[in-house]
Amino acid sequence: MSEISKLGEFGLIDHLTEDIKLNNASSVKGVGDDAAILDYTKNGVRVLVTTDLLLEGVHFDLTYTPLKHLGYKAAMVNFSDIYAMNGRPKQITVSLGVSGKFQTEDIEELYEGLKLACERHNVDIVGGDTSASATGLTISITCIGEGEEGKIVCRNTAKPNDLICVSGNLGAAYMGLQLLEREKKVFDKSGRDEMQPDFAGKEYLLERQLKPEARKDIIEALDKAGIVPTAMMDISDGLSSELMHICKQSGVGCRIYEEKIPVDYQTAIQAEEFNMNLMTVALNGGEDYELLFTAPVSLHEKINEIKGIKVIGYTTADTNEKVLVTPEGPEIALKAQGWTGF
Amino acid sequence: MSEISKLGEFGLIDHLTEDIKLNNASSVKGVGDDAAILDYTKNGVRVLVTTDLLLEGVHFDLTYTPLKHLGYKAAMVNFSDIYAMNGRPKQITVSLGVSGKFQTEDIEELYEGLKLACERHNVDIVGGDTSASATGLTISITCIGEGEEGKIVCRNTAKPNDLICVSGNLGAAYMGLQLLEREKKVFDKSGRDEMQPDFAGKEYLLERQLKPEARKDIIEALDKAGIVPTAMMDISDGLSSELMHICKQSGVGCRIYEEKIPVDYQTAIQAEEFNMNLMTVALNGGEDYELLFTAPVSLHEKINEIKGIKVIGYTTADTNEKVLVTPEGPEIALKAQGWTGF
Repeated sequence: MSEISKLGEFGLIDHLTEDIKLNNASSVKGVGDDAAILDYTKNGVRVLVTTDLLLEGVHFDLTYTPLKHLGYKAAMVNFSDIYAMNGRPKQITVSLGVSGKFQTEDIEELYEGLKLACERHNVDIVGGDTSASATGLTISITCIGEGEEGKIVCRNTAKPNDLICVSGNLGAAYMGLQLLEREKKVFDKSGRDEMQPDFAGKEYLLERQLKPEARKDIIEALDKAGIVPTAMMDISDGLSSELMHICKQSGVGCRIYEEKIPVDYQTAIQAEEFNMNLMTVALNGGEDYELLFTAPVSLHEKINEIKGIKVIGYTTADTNEKVLVTPEGPEIALKAQGWTGF
Repeated sequence: MSEISKLGEFGLIDHLTEDIKLNNASSVKGVGDDAAILDYTKNGVRVLVTTDLLLEGVHFDLTYTPLKHLGYKAAMVNFSDIYAMNGRPKQITVSLGVSGKFQTEDIEELYEGLKLACERHNVDIVGGDTSASATGLTISITCIGEGEEGKIVCRNTAKPNDLICVSGNLGAAYMGLQLLEREKKVFDKSGRDEMQPDFAGKEYLLERQLKPEARKDIIEALDKAGIVPTAMMDISDGLSSELMHICKQSGVGCRIYEEKIPVDYQTAIQAEEFNMNLMTVALNGGEDYELLFTAPVSLHEKINEIKGIKVIGYTTADTNEKVLVTPEGPEIALKAQGWTGF
């Protein structure tokens, strides 16, 4: 392993970024100057900018998070924000704060994950710096993307009586986290180095937590079908919390149906094993990075034809109505339990 | 004082950004969605992006840094990077990691400084989030700006026999830091709460450290005079280190003259008081955020007419020649002692 101090601050970032090539026409100049240079003069194009700060001990736990996965996820959560605007991510800048416990190879691994994510989503790394940190690892990523004028989708534009739709399934990332946290506790107690947690059959849940995939495919499928959602966001803090955002910002209410909410069978099995309420997991478990959007009722059939999208309810004109309808009949008021961390 | 937990994560950022107005035509939509929306379709315009991560205990010390100043400086160092490309800063996004020791009022103060800096430089805050931090304060700012095609200035385009120029004066911010660090040590020893350090007559040095000003005026003066530098960067890590960057990236050497290097008399007095070599301070002291640029010799007279710019030497074709010429005659090899922190 190599001490980072041997390379120094400039040396490290030069080393990490030396093989980075720019693939997007909008990336004019990348890493290595005071700022990156981008070209977004194409007619009708808008620039989208989103940023995310990940702190060790708050947003990730290196006890069970491989650094390559962490890099992959750090990029992916930013891409997800751009897709959630119905846009396409094009560039990222990466700032790292790195404490003395890390070796050059560790940060290389992190960058491996970043690069893999960027490759898969055709995104260029155009800026980056690394600095010393007194306390663990800090990752700050800014993602720049493009959206077409008139096709960019915000949170505040849902209409009453729109369909409410979600992609994929919910709660799996949260169950993955619970699994990892449980094993960590077992490990902390036993203190044995050779502990090998038995995750057989749980791979899907772990992957949803450690290596989420931003839903580029859903954005492309919607575009192909000629569908522009009325409002959209990505589900990072749990369906319930995100739906509250759309309702509040759009001035609408909502009715969603418990039996329509998509849940993977592994999530269900794990919830039972942990004696957790599956609906609570699906409604409030965060980090699935699925898309939540609204669309006119007239598009119901078209949406049903798209694989991986489920209609879970509809918006209403009554802003006070935020309701989960259960199969047995009773209606439950939705609450935002999203992660706050404070 | 109010606990941040009362507001929660979303509440805090809503509260901090509720009175933010957008002033730039390129700012279409700001805080409050998955991403900000910008319009950079104007013909011949390029988007500039730079990012900076500031960590408590590494980049700033809250013992002697008022939070308002810190916010101001955090914005300013990003603006400086955009000016260093001969561009104009237009938007910033702000990510904060905040530990439990901070109150809502503290973060408000930080935002006060950010907003003041943005106001003065006509920059919009278009994105931001706050999250919990396990360990102090983390500030990540990304700045987006615009530059004119053909007028953007990089680091790698200096030619041999160009003039080497700097704005303002050097070493003052570093002397300010030494003053603050000395008082901190005195304070730590005495442990008295009522200690009032005597900074009378040192205000300029402290201001250069705590509240630096990005050189928008110099960029405007150059533009007015019709001067486009051949290469440019801002001096954050010390003149010597930055000059090495330009030489290395442009494939040139340099000869600079000790007696030409601009130093304020207060910096000189303080260096003497601290028994420090003034040239070492001026060459290697960081955080002045002045501009370092090269320009064709034919512009010598024009440049001399601009207040606040000094020609300190010239570039050479010999890439191995990096020399400081002293008044007594001997030539000293320049070294990059820039801050690394690792």
